[in-house]
Formats: sequence, C-alpha cells, structure tokens
Amino acid sequence: MTRPSLAAAVADTLDRLRERCPLVHSITNLVVTNSTANALLAVGASPAMVESAEEAGPFARIADALVINLGTMTPDRARGMQTAYASAREAGTPWILDPVAVGALEYRSGVALDLLAHRPQAIRGNASEILALDALCAAEQAVAGRGVDAAHAAGMARNAALRLARRSGAVVTVSGAVDLVTDGREVGEVANGHPMMPRVTGLGCTATAIIGACLAVEPDPFLASLHGMTLIGLGGELAAERARGPGSLQVELLDALYRLDRPTLLARARLELHPLA
Amino acid sequence: MTRPSLAAAVADTLDRLRERCPLVHSITNLVVTNSTANALLAVGASPAMVESAEEAGPFARIADALVINLGTMTPDRARGMQTAYASAREAGTPWILDPVAVGALEYRSGVALDLLAHRPQAIRGNASEILALDALCAAEQAVAGRGVDAAHAAGMARNAALRLARRSGAVVTVSGAVDLVTDGREVGEVANGHPMMPRVTGLGCTATAIIGACLAVEPDPFLASLHGMTLIGLGGELAAERARGPGSLQVELLDALYRLDRPTLLARARLELHPLA
Amino acid sequence: MTRPSLAAAVADTLDRLRERCPLVHSITNLVVTNSTANALLAVGASPAMVESAEEAGPFARIADALVINLGTMTPDRARGMQTAYASAREAGTPWILDPVAVGALEYRSGVALDLLAHRPQAIRGNASEILALDALCAAEQAVAGRGVDAAHAAGMARNAALRLARRSGAVVTVSGAVDLVTDGREVGEVANGHPMMPRVTGLGCTATAIIGACLAVEPDPFLASLHGMTLIGLGGELAAERARGPGSLQVELLDALYRLDRPTLLARARLELHPLA
Repeated sequence: MTRPSLAAAVADTLDRLRERCPLVHSITNLVVTNSTANALLAVGASPAMVESAEEAGPFARIADALVINLGTMTPDRARGMQTAYASAREAGTPWILDPVAVGALEYRSGVALDLLAHRPQAIRGNASEILALDALCAAEQAVAGRGVDAAHAAGMARNAALRLARRSGAVVTVSGAVDLVTDGREVGEVANGHPMMPRVTGLGCTATAIIGACLAVEPDPFLASLHGMTLIGLGGELAAERARGPGSLQVELLDALYRLDRPTLLARARLELHPLA
Repeated sequence: MTRPSLAAAVADTLDRLRERCPLVHSITNLVVTNSTANALLAVGASPAMVESAEEAGPFARIADALVINLGTMTPDRARGMQTAYASAREAGTPWILDPVAVGALEYRSGVALDLLAHRPQAIRGNASEILALDALCAAEQAVAGRGVDAAHAAGMARNAALRLARRSGAVVTVSGAVDLVTDGREVGEVANGHPMMPRVTGLGCTATAIIGACLAVEPDPFLASLHGMTLIGLGGELAAERARGPGSLQVELLDALYRLDRPTLLARARLELHPLA
Repeated sequence: MTRPSLAAAVADTLDRLRERCPLVHSITNLVVTNSTANALLAVGASPAMVESAEEAGPFARIADALVINLGTMTPDRARGMQTAYASAREAGTPWILDPVAVGALEYRSGVALDLLAHRPQAIRGNASEILALDALCAAEQAVAGRGVDAAHAAGMARNAALRLARRSGAVVTVSGAVDLVTDGREVGEVANGHPMMPRVTGLGCTATAIIGACLAVEPDPFLASLHGMTLIGLGGELAAERARGPGSLQVELLDALYRLDRPTLLARARLELHPLA
C-alpha cells in the first residue's frame, strides 16, 4: 500500500471505533487504570476494568476485545486473567498481551509464558520486554533487563520480534522512537510519537489498550496493531506541540485522541510497510 | 420551592462542606480512586480510601459519610464493604451505594442485593444500572445491559427509580442528560451538565462521592442527592466551557468545583422539584 | 552551610537524578500510584510499582531505592512490604516509610511498628502521623488523630520528630507550611510550597517518593530528605503561579518538576539548617 492509503485505513479504523464503541475489557495494572480508561474513551471505545476471577470470565464473553497487562501482578489478578483468556478463546474475543517488565521477575515470567500458550492475537512491549519474552519463549536464558524502561533500542529487538511472532502466532509490536509491528512475515513501522512520551507513566500500556480497541473493529491483528500505534503516536505528537511538560502532555494526549480526524491522519500519519525478502 | 431558593440551598450545602470538611470514607473502584479523592477535596471534603476488611469497619465509625462503589469488585473488597456498612449502621454514618455495572455480572448482582438489604440512604447509577437494580430488587429477571454505559435514557428509568426508592427506602438518583432524583414521593431534576462528561472515566463515581459528602452535611438524603448532582453537573458545565477535550475537561472540572461560588450557583443551577400527583 | 550552597546541593541532587535515572521501587496506595509514578518520572527517576509478596522481594534487590506507603493497607500488601524491606536490608537498598493515617487505625499501627523495627533510612508524614508514630514507638498511648489530614501544625510535631528520629535511627520529615527535617541532631526547614497543595490528593505521598528517589543518589538521608522536600515544595510553588485550582495544580506540578533547573533552585529554594544547641 502507498502511504496515503495506509493512513486512510487508520482513519477508517478510527471511524469504526467511534461508530461501534467497542467494549474493551481490560485487566491492567494499578498504575494506569484511570489513564487507560480515559484513552479508550477518547478514541471512542467503551472501557471496562473487570479483573476478579469471579467476574473476568463472564465479562470476557460479552466484551468485544480483551487487554491483559502484567504490571502489578498478583496471584489474584493472575487467576482473573486465566478465566478471562479462557472465555475469550471460547467466545472468539480477540485479545492482546502486554508483558510489562517480563524477564526481570521470575513469577511474572511464568505467568507470561502461560498466557502466551493461550495464543493472544497481539503482543506489545518495549524492546527489553520483547527480547525477554522471545528468550523465555525459546527456553533460552532470559535477557537480564531492568524490565520497565526501554534499555534496548527498538531496532535491536527486531529479530526477537520476528521470531516471537512466528513462534507465538501473535502480531508483535515493539514500541520505540520508531515502532515496529510484525506478524513474522511483514514488518510495519510507525514513526509518529515524541521523545517526551516515556516521561508519562503508562503510555505503553495505553498503546496496548488502543490496539486492543482496534482489534475489536479491525479483524486483521497486523493492521489493528499498526493502526493502534499510529493513533497513540500521532496523538502524542500533536499533544507535545501544546505541552509544557509531562503533566500537560498526558492531558493534551487525551484531548488530541478525542479530536483526531481524517485530514490530520492523512497529513501526518507516518507509517510504512516493509515485506520481508 | 422556587428555583432561586433551590439554588440557594445548594450554595448552603457547599458552604457547609467547606466549613466542616467532612471525612468521607470511600470504598471505590481501582479506576477512580485518584479522581474521586481529588473531586472530594475540590468541594471541601476530606477523602479517605480505606477498604480492607481489617480497617474499613473501624474507619466507617469515625467517618462522616461512607461511599460504597461496586466497580472492580473482588471478594476481599466485598468483605471490606460488609464490615463498613455494618459499622456505618451502628454509628449512624450515612452511606450511599453506587451499583456500577450491576445486572451485567452475577457475582456483583449478589453483592448489590446484600448491600441494598442494609439500607443505604442513597443510591446513584446510570439508567441501565437503576433498571437492573430495580429488577433484581423485585426478584424480576435482570435487564440485560452492557452495564457500564448508559444504554437506556434516564427518562426510561424513571419508573424503576420510583419503585426502587419505595422498596429500598433509599433516595435514588439516575444520572443522564437530565439527572433524576427521587425518594419515591417527590422527583427532582437537575439539567446541569455537558455531553462530553461521559467521555471522562468515572464521573458517575465522582457524582456518587460528592452526594456522599453532601450526606455528611445535609441530613435530608433527598436534598443531599439533589445538591450533589447540581455541584457535579454545574462543575462539568463550567469546565466544558474551557476544555478542548476530555483530558482538559477532567482537569477543569476539579478547578471548577474548587472555584464554585454562590453567585454562580444562583445564576446557573438548573434544578427543579416535581411532587408526584 | 549558607543558603546558596544548600540550594546548590539540591541542584546537584537533581542533576544526579537525571543522569542516573534511579530505579525507585514503590509499594504505595491505590490512590496515588499514577501520580507518584508521574512525579518520579518528572524528576528523572524510573518508577516501578511492584507490590505482591511474589515479586516485591526480588525487585527490592535490583532497585536503587524503596518506598513503602501505608495507605490502602491490606494483609496482601503488608506481605509484599515485608519481603521488600527484608531484601532491601540485605541488598543495602535505602528505603523510606510513609506512615499514612497511622494512629487512626489499629491494624495499620501494628504494621507501622513492624516496619519501623526494620530501620528505614527515612520517614515522612504530616504532623498527625509523626505524632502518632512517635507515640506508638514510645509505647505511649497513640494520639487520637483524624489520620489523613494535618490536624496538628508541623511546629507542634517538632519534638515528636526529634524523639522519633533518635529512637528509630531514621531521618524524620514533617510536612507542613514549613517542612521540618531532622536526624535528631540537626533540624532542616523548607519554606517552599503553596497552601493549595493539600487540596490535591497524595502530594504527601509524592513527597515521600521523591525523597526515596533522592536516597538513591544522595547517600546522606538527611540531605536526601531535605532535597526531596525542596524539589516538591518549589515545584508546587511554581505550579501554583500558573494554576487556577487543584486540577491544574496537579498538572502544572509535573510540568514544573520536569522543567526545574539550577538557576530557579538557586533563586527560589528556601531551605535552612538549624543545628540543635
């Protein structure tokens, strides 16, 4: 596809989000519940944070997509995740995994491997997390990372992402200065974003949730991932033009996602496709 | 009462909030803890989120009002709620129930019915939630709702609210474009608010918490509910005049609640009473 | 030290935060996870909220500092704290205790005493909390406080802070209009801040977290506490110059912390040292 048609497809996905208001079931960490819910509302989705083992199973059945995020893991939350992905699988609800800080902590790595075995449609992490998850998945020794921040450049994780996508069957997204999206065959890149974004907590988690919303309205998880990353990246870029620091960046991001429209996407989305040789 | 005297009574309640700084004990969901605490502080109350079974009982005894919100329910949180309402009842602490997403999930519906049996002074929900709670309360079949968003217009829930108020003994508030407040005999309506408000997560939960604060300084739960809805509604309306989207709306709402004064309430509060025939 | 050299030392600490990006492990309450993480990011630190008993121990070993905050206590969170401080002690990770609402609730007071016995490098609370913790520590009768708001002026807690510092071996900070910091021998005072700050939830918790970050880059816990309080106090003061209310104050605070620089610290930091006679 040429660049304008790629951007037009993002705008189509955004239109569908606003028309259908998909119910996005999120089991996410304690730090980002509020900011994730607000970002989902800003793009037009309907967020629902339902995480207990008692409720997450039934809810995943009625949701349009499921987001599972490993931050602030506890055994209780792990049980909620297990009932949720089991229901999602039965009901055909697409789901995405955010392996926050995987590799840095043994308990969490075990949960991540279990989740991976249940075949999420998509995975999004920073370079450290994707490297660690690929290593775990390959039963290789986990990369010793600091876990939560992007200690490795996105580019370095490219091979890991390709391998992980092939092994897991999921579309893998690596967040970074240029985001990389791959299904193991094609590679997409999104150059939108702003260097101040990592100074706001949980924008990676927000990106995962927005991909989750896109999975509800775009059946191809490769396109859903690419479109989700473009929405958050361009939203952050527009927000940074008005922000004085990370406090106002977070506020402006929600406003920007809410105001995002087709002409802006056509003019400013910077995404590309690179089929592998 | 005529409209000016209704608005003046809201201003009296706001004055009392700021003079007395009532301690409002909230057991609320993981998404809105921060925004609820900030809204309570902005109107002059003193929020305290104390939710474990170990602490919620003793704390409800020293609090001036109690807010129980069913979002992100877990068995642990349910135990905290049970010890809290038992203490509140013994100590005469007024309390309000927010039946988030009731009807959509069986586990939560059971908790809601248990709470209802312990006679909250007030209940606030959107139209779906009030319809579902009324149906549960009447041992009728629960309305199949999506739970978290207002799938039914507030007007449709009017009859359910009247029935629920009579059966439960609580004042029932239905949030919507025009909010409805009833004790089963009188109906109050608040027309303040703004259509962008549902695009900020948890403003319904915030409304419940503000009614909770009003219960601490206004002994009539019907007036407390009416005044609380006017404060949040007018706060949102003023905020929307300065906001560019839902991010800035949330920030401006806190500023507006903090700055709200008697002249603005007298000029702009839009609340009415309709005694039933 | 003269005032300019004190302010210069704060600027040195801020420089080190930005150069080293210390990993600050926080086990904090449900209300402030997001705002704490954002404040840590704004000063240059790398926050990680890891709280389960399964993960908090291993994580405290790799973190550069640990923050333990008693808000929204549960037995599960207490177990996480216990494994975390045990690891921190073994690994030599400095840690700070925020005894939120201690004294008001028996369960929490027991947890606080247990934590105190494991020798945090620093403690920060408001006057009520420091009075209560001192009383508990001395096996005297706890002061009956409302716990969460500063019912006693900071000055009244001066003696309690000195005693608590001597008994516990921790540097004790009492937040107030003028903040007091003491190791039981010297007393430091920080006059920066703004009266609107207590109208934003959790800025005390944020102050504790920023001291925690400073502990990672400044080995003297007395200076780390003094510098941390100056950063948050001046940040709040600068933010208040642009804010219209507590909503915008919270946003502006993050921007101000992010933008804070040496010239501003040299011109506006108001901190003093008073050696005891």
